[in-house]
Amino acid sequence: MQRYFIDSSEIVDELILPSEIYHHAIRVMRMQEGSTFELVLRNQEIAVMQISKLTKETASAKVINWLQQTVELPVPTTIACAISKSDKAEWIVQKGTELGASKFIFFNGEFSVARWDQKKVTKKIERLSKVALNAAQQAHRSKVPTIEYYQDITAIDFSNYSHKIVAYEEAAKKGEKNNLTKLMMSLQDSRLLATKSELIAIFGPEGGISTKEVNYLGKQNFIFVGLGPRIMRAETAPLYLLSILSFTLELG
Amino acid sequence: MQRYFIDSSEIVDELILPSEIYHHAIRVMRMQEGSTFELVLRNQEIAVMQISKLTKETASAKVINWLQQTVELPVPTTIACAISKSDKAEWIVQKGTELGASKFIFFNGEFSVARWDQKKVTKKIERLSKVALNAAQQAHRSKVPTIEYYQDITAIDFSNYSHKIVAYEEAAKKGEKNNLTKLMMSLQDSRLLATKSELIAIFGPEGGISTKEVNYLGKQNFIFVGLGPRIMRAETAPLYLLSILSFTLELG
Repeated sequence: MQRYFIDSSEIVDELILPSEIYHHAIRVMRMQEGSTFELVLRNQEIAVMQISKLTKETASAKVINWLQQTVELPVPTTIACAISKSDKAEWIVQKGTELGASKFIFFNGEFSVARWDQKKVTKKIERLSKVALNAAQQAHRSKVPTIEYYQDITAIDFSNYSHKIVAYEEAAKKGEKNNLTKLMMSLQDSRLLATKSELIAIFGPEGGISTKEVNYLGKQNFIFVGLGPRIMRAETAPLYLLSILSFTLELG
Repeated sequence: MQRYFIDSSEIVDELILPSEIYHHAIRVMRMQEGSTFELVLRNQEIAVMQISKLTKETASAKVINWLQQTVELPVPTTIACAISKSDKAEWIVQKGTELGASKFIFFNGEFSVARWDQKKVTKKIERLSKVALNAAQQAHRSKVPTIEYYQDITAIDFSNYSHKIVAYEEAAKKGEKNNLTKLMMSLQDSRLLATKSELIAIFGPEGGISTKEVNYLGKQNFIFVGLGPRIMRAETAPLYLLSILSFTLELG
């Protein structure tokens, strides 16, 4: 069933479809009176809606059911990526949203070859937020991930995270194999003990994380993890991590 | 270090660089006499080579070291995808190669909206083989995945596979959570017992696997697995599986 998000926490009686939803549901999906769709409210509740009245200009819909679903990763996960050469940000946001990320941070790594033009940052974030919204709808998420941008790694606030990791190619090269498994065990434990946990994972650009950044993150108590023996592109590594989080916490 | 593949199983004394490698190493990477690169032979042995002589037309290189590395997934894995609407084949091959797949099969699913024009199949396979080669070099693999195409699912030979799964959205919707974990445990066991195992995983197109295909695969003893609570695009699901294989078999 088609899923839409709405920036409201309650539906009183009938909902008059906001223009973006009206356009997609009626013009693109060609819904009729009686057609149904899913609507996710700001509080993440999900209603099954049925179109009750349709004119050339407006449509209204009524709640016919409330869904009980758990579709969000049990541990909110922030994916923080240095801006990479070919700027795969849209791609990371689309796929990362399908795989359950709750927030994306982009920052200028010391070794980032490309940078975001300061004037275009607002537009970039708008565009990426739209990609996240579309992917969240398609993936049947109940939360749309947020997008943030920082000038450099030291501008990011890490204080809310219980678990902090960096994907570190040098660790992988030296055969570091255990830190990711340890992280997953720790997250499973937090879950069993119902401790609130939140994860941030940092991914460098093509050139990797600089020594300065490594030292900074070490001081912030980040764990350096290897992601297996092959070398992944900057945009592939976040998907590897998110898949494993899903497997360990949702299927394990 | 830059990595190249060569279609030969030994290097006698000096290697005269084949023209494709010459072009990339000398023209693109601007290597000089004394520069080093890695060369993967057909038997998957990996030599560290150093350019010993360079002229305007040719270059030769000598072995200075042999690498001992295990970079291939312990269980050879075939990713078999129904052709999907926007034809994400290149993308699946590039990312799937980074994540360790050993073979890619594309086939016309009963619900595939797009089809490959029969006349263009040879060209498509050539193009995808090139994508696989480039990605294998970039990911530092010791094996280049192969590409195959079949008219429909019944034309695929499943006889060599010890483990056979289908990603099945209906299973996921019904909350099927255990089959992927069971598969991973079985693969880990085979590894401990040094039993030769080989996995094939089938992924449907946007419209999913048809009832006819479901029945056919059931008779071939395929296991139907759910891949978590979110709905992934056709091209994302194979990456989810490959990531989990790596985590379970290479880092676990």
